[in-house]
Amino acid sequence: MNVLVVGGAGYIGSHAVRLLLDAGHTVTVYDNLSRGHAASVPDGMLVQGELSDRAKVVQTLRDKKIDAVMHFAAFALVNESVNDPALYYRNNVIDAVELLDAMREADVKKIVFSSTTATYGEPDTVPIPETTPQNPINPYGFTKMVFEHALADYAAAYGFGYAALRYFNAAGARPDGSIGEDHDPETHLIPIVLQVALGQRDAITIFGDDYATEDGTCVRDYIHVDDLGAAHLLALDKIELGKGLCVNLGTGRGTSVREIIEACREVTGHPIPEKMGPRRAGDPSELIADARMAKERLGWQPKYMDVKSIVQTAWKWHQAHPNGYAK
Amino acid sequence: MNVLVVGGAGYIGSHAVRLLLDAGHTVTVYDNLSRGHAASVPDGMLVQGELSDRAKVVQTLRDKKIDAVMHFAAFALVNESVNDPALYYRNNVIDAVELLDAMREADVKKIVFSSTTATYGEPDTVPIPETTPQNPINPYGFTKMVFEHALADYAAAYGFGYAALRYFNAAGARPDGSIGEDHDPETHLIPIVLQVALGQRDAITIFGDDYATEDGTCVRDYIHVDDLGAAHLLALDKIELGKGLCVNLGTGRGTSVREIIEACREVTGHPIPEKMGPRRAGDPSELIADARMAKERLGWQPKYMDVKSIVQTAWKWHQAHPNGYAK
Repeated sequence: MNVLVVGGAGYIGSHAVRLLLDAGHTVTVYDNLSRGHAASVPDGMLVQGELSDRAKVVQTLRDKKIDAVMHFAAFALVNESVNDPALYYRNNVIDAVELLDAMREADVKKIVFSSTTATYGEPDTVPIPETTPQNPINPYGFTKMVFEHALADYAAAYGFGYAALRYFNAAGARPDGSIGEDHDPETHLIPIVLQVALGQRDAITIFGDDYATEDGTCVRDYIHVDDLGAAHLLALDKIELGKGLCVNLGTGRGTSVREIIEACREVTGHPIPEKMGPRRAGDPSELIADARMAKERLGWQPKYMDVKSIVQTAWKWHQAHPNGYAK
Repeated sequence: MNVLVVGGAGYIGSHAVRLLLDAGHTVTVYDNLSRGHAASVPDGMLVQGELSDRAKVVQTLRDKKIDAVMHFAAFALVNESVNDPALYYRNNVIDAVELLDAMREADVKKIVFSSTTATYGEPDTVPIPETTPQNPINPYGFTKMVFEHALADYAAAYGFGYAALRYFNAAGARPDGSIGEDHDPETHLIPIVLQVALGQRDAITIFGDDYATEDGTCVRDYIHVDDLGAAHLLALDKIELGKGLCVNLGTGRGTSVREIIEACREVTGHPIPEKMGPRRAGDPSELIADARMAKERLGWQPKYMDVKSIVQTAWKWHQAHPNGYAK
């Protein structure tokens, strides 16, 4: 297939690009490089542009004879979304709907969308099935949910086919260490812990150790970025026009903050000192996927089922690129 | 105050314009006339433009020294929203957020927004208080709900102050008959019934008479358009920066389709033949406001508490303007 990867210069998008190429697809990356890295895109595949540039998006869809779109171009920082929601309505709603309307114009109707567990908010039951009511508690989660609704409405009215993949905690890097995670600011736990091992931070701060979990720290479901990517490829094959599929992507296993830090110590051999900090607002104690639907509907099974193997891939990337994509 | 009435050439907006003028405010109407009527705007008050034209909106806000915005510019046809949702994401979300961003740029932070009972979907309990969960069942209701969230997020982050007024069934016309309802297509019950009295239709079709209501037909809460407008003026005074107020606007009284038809017969003296049709999808049996909050928070009390008085104002308009604003 000819696949347009929107946001393909970002963390998860860049990994999906490699997996698409590995599987023999033809890839075009559309990215404005506002947060992505040109260096993460294979030579010759990047079209730099805005989603609001209708003519350019339509021309790209037509020139490259695109069969399907993967949409990774969104902002994903919870705190930023609270402090500056305009960015999130712009990027995650307005620009995303502009993409759909460009697709209508170019008659491209298949799309795989990066959704998120943040659309659930603070669910009562864990593990979290896809039937959990979506009650997002911040503009990030809300704007992602809005786009899921837009997809459902476009499927019903215009015959779009889509998959909305609700990620739990993306982590890790391509095993060859060639691409990986590089956010500014970095808010993800594993890269921050590994920055301590690299000598870039003195200690890792744990935000709350009095949660109702085994060791008192927050529990999350860490899923390897290549496992996420693999699910996108499977979803691409399963998409039916006029229909949608909303699926959790997680391992179904929870790992606490302390367990992540311990895994990082084992992998890096660095003592990684801890500091205690207060709880952060809007941090639920446990977020673990009910991961059965992805297995049943997509035939998907994560390969990285223990966090140590995930951390090993991340560590390879961060060691080789201590300053990320910067020189 | 200097008030910008966005969508002021539409049905409800044009009535609010008159009430603002009556109260001594200075009014500018911003409307693209895609569905509004230039003839409904007082001379010299119209700025014709798109909300996506950032420069024009900002310039208008600055040139007219706008203190507050009333936002009526949205599409409001449920069936159309299902069949062509792109129009609703465009008009009710994208363009509306563009308005907010223009307001940020021009440092105008007060806004009264026309929301709707459609944001509630099909609530379990009637009368419907504002605490009812919002579960809209069509893109119209959903896109209106999205904008309520945007307002809340902009209030928290940027200090906007807003009122979201959730209308029940707007009806009636300015009592002097100078302006009134003129939609294409017309989907509202009272104008359609009055078209029968005007000889423009043979009969009125009742969609279902086996609902669990007293006479079997759907019950709605009809609220006079001038009562809606009056609530906007009260809301304007109550808005506090950084805060929002979401309030139902209805009478708290329900009227069935058959009662509306009977009121139209009494007012017009026309027999108004009925035809029976099947139920329509997504028509709840009863939608009646719990109207207490508007009274408590806005000091608002509808003046038109019986539908006959509402129909009288509508009839005066339709008699004088049987083809609406068209020549």
